[in-house]
Amino acid sequence: MNFKEQLKEYQTKVNQELEKYLKKQECPEKILNHAMEYSLMGGGKRLRPILVMVTYQIFKDDVQKCMPYAVAIEMIHNFSLIHDDLPGIDNDDVRHGKPTNHKKFNEATAILAGDGLFNQAYMVMSEDLKHTKLEELSEKLEVFSEFSNAVDRMIAGEYMDTEYEGKPITEEYLTYIHKNKTAALLRLCVRMGAILAKATQEDLEKLTRYAEKIGLAFQIKDDILSEEGQEEILGKPVGNDKELEKCTYVSQYGLQGAKEILEKITKEAIEELKEYGEKAEFLKELAYYIQNRNK
Amino acid sequence: MNFKEQLKEYQTKVNQELEKYLKKQECPEKILNHAMEYSLMGGGKRLRPILVMVTYQIFKDDVQKCMPYAVAIEMIHNFSLIHDDLPGIDNDDVRHGKPTNHKKFNEATAILAGDGLFNQAYMVMSEDLKHTKLEELSEKLEVFSEFSNAVDRMIAGEYMDTEYEGKPITEEYLTYIHKNKTAALLRLCVRMGAILAKATQEDLEKLTRYAEKIGLAFQIKDDILSEEGQEEILGKPVGNDKELEKCTYVSQYGLQGAKEILEKITKEAIEELKEYGEKAEFLKELAYYIQNRNK
Repeated sequence: MNFKEQLKEYQTKVNQELEKYLKKQECPEKILNHAMEYSLMGGGKRLRPILVMVTYQIFKDDVQKCMPYAVAIEMIHNFSLIHDDLPGIDNDDVRHGKPTNHKKFNEATAILAGDGLFNQAYMVMSEDLKHTKLEELSEKLEVFSEFSNAVDRMIAGEYMDTEYEGKPITEEYLTYIHKNKTAALLRLCVRMGAILAKATQEDLEKLTRYAEKIGLAFQIKDDILSEEGQEEILGKPVGNDKELEKCTYVSQYGLQGAKEILEKITKEAIEELKEYGEKAEFLKELAYYIQNRNK
Repeated sequence: MNFKEQLKEYQTKVNQELEKYLKKQECPEKILNHAMEYSLMGGGKRLRPILVMVTYQIFKDDVQKCMPYAVAIEMIHNFSLIHDDLPGIDNDDVRHGKPTNHKKFNEATAILAGDGLFNQAYMVMSEDLKHTKLEELSEKLEVFSEFSNAVDRMIAGEYMDTEYEGKPITEEYLTYIHKNKTAALLRLCVRMGAILAKATQEDLEKLTRYAEKIGLAFQIKDDILSEEGQEEILGKPVGNDKELEKCTYVSQYGLQGAKEILEKITKEAIEELKEYGEKAEFLKELAYYIQNRNK
């Protein structure tokens, strides 16, 4: 199976798992549940849950054990997209080629659908924790703690991004925003997979470095796509960042400069995987995928 | 010490505990942290954390053990107030006699400050869980699960309240909204206190009935105050509900009808406590306090 086929298989698996958690549609708040489903099942790439699964599988085969955490991270990711798109924040109309949540429903519903997905992530973890044997709890409690801390960082990063929109920014702050807004969650995914699989401290550190590098690569690529991507493929408007005078790697280093940093960082990420050979093949391909994706 | 003095002492204790968790003010996202603190320390009655503490103390003396959960519930309560006040939802300008979060800061900051407090509640619990001995974990995991489920109900209730604003509503749906929006969290507080103190199933059920009754009483009193309260004491505009054609107990049963239901429900709540004698004196007084408060 080549990378694309394998990626597709992972995406299908994630979607099947997410479907298990979709809320019922016959209750009084059915439109809220529909709004949550609209965003959660709205065509994301599922990179975050896949990162959890693939990292877990370097060490262990029973991938089902990490699925509640993979699902939870995708819920958090979608909550953050819904809130970021709101008129009060980025005011975006289109996401994954479809109307954003507040455009499809309304602002109140979108705020609460975001809150609902946010909380559901913790419900999913709490349900799993309640049914975990005592001797397996310590890794999961560590994961829960890292999870809530990474989400805290993501919110801080999003706040900084909003505050510095259209304002001059130092390189230090640009890095701070990316590190918190995007990279913290990707780093969390890899660490969750490794911790849940009881990886050694050394492995955990190596994989964390890989994660930090692809996290940075992901953001740089996002900035490049926002500048030169194709609107119909990307599913969102191109050139918006410039219009909003957003601070990005492209505005800071130019298009060519950003691409060079992206290539260097991707190589470094892959270097961290060399000891794992075949077992980390997918993570290696994923780094290239992040570098070369067109949406 | 009379009830008022004791209430004040509990409020001081809660405020001291909350202060331990205030986020630092020397980081890049300091305004976000300031916005979180603005709402969290903005003069709430602290009823929810006090309910946790007082219920816990019926059974056990070491109240410090339940404080992380008391703190977490106050954070969730404040997140929900910030989001409910947003222009996209209730569009309120004043809360506790001061500008609402989005009025004091801006909408983006308020959305993210709400998200931040929401997540911090889970951070506080995850930190406590990580440092709990294995033999004490099962109660705390039960509490974590009930916590996330109650927040899910609160969000559903808030959604329904928004959806039915200015529309005719059945009594069934009015009850559904109150049960979820307000009562679920108050019920959770009492249950958390009892579960953390390892109360018996019978005690848990009795106290749950008490909680459900004061939860309903709380909402009815809120509706009455929104109709006939004094703006300068209440710290928010009076008569707004009528203007917005909100569904309330007053619009449904009239002012006198609502007051009669409130009195009956309060009596029933107190009935549930009679076995605990002196130990439940504060909970009993609290029921009267909810019935008679003017803000």
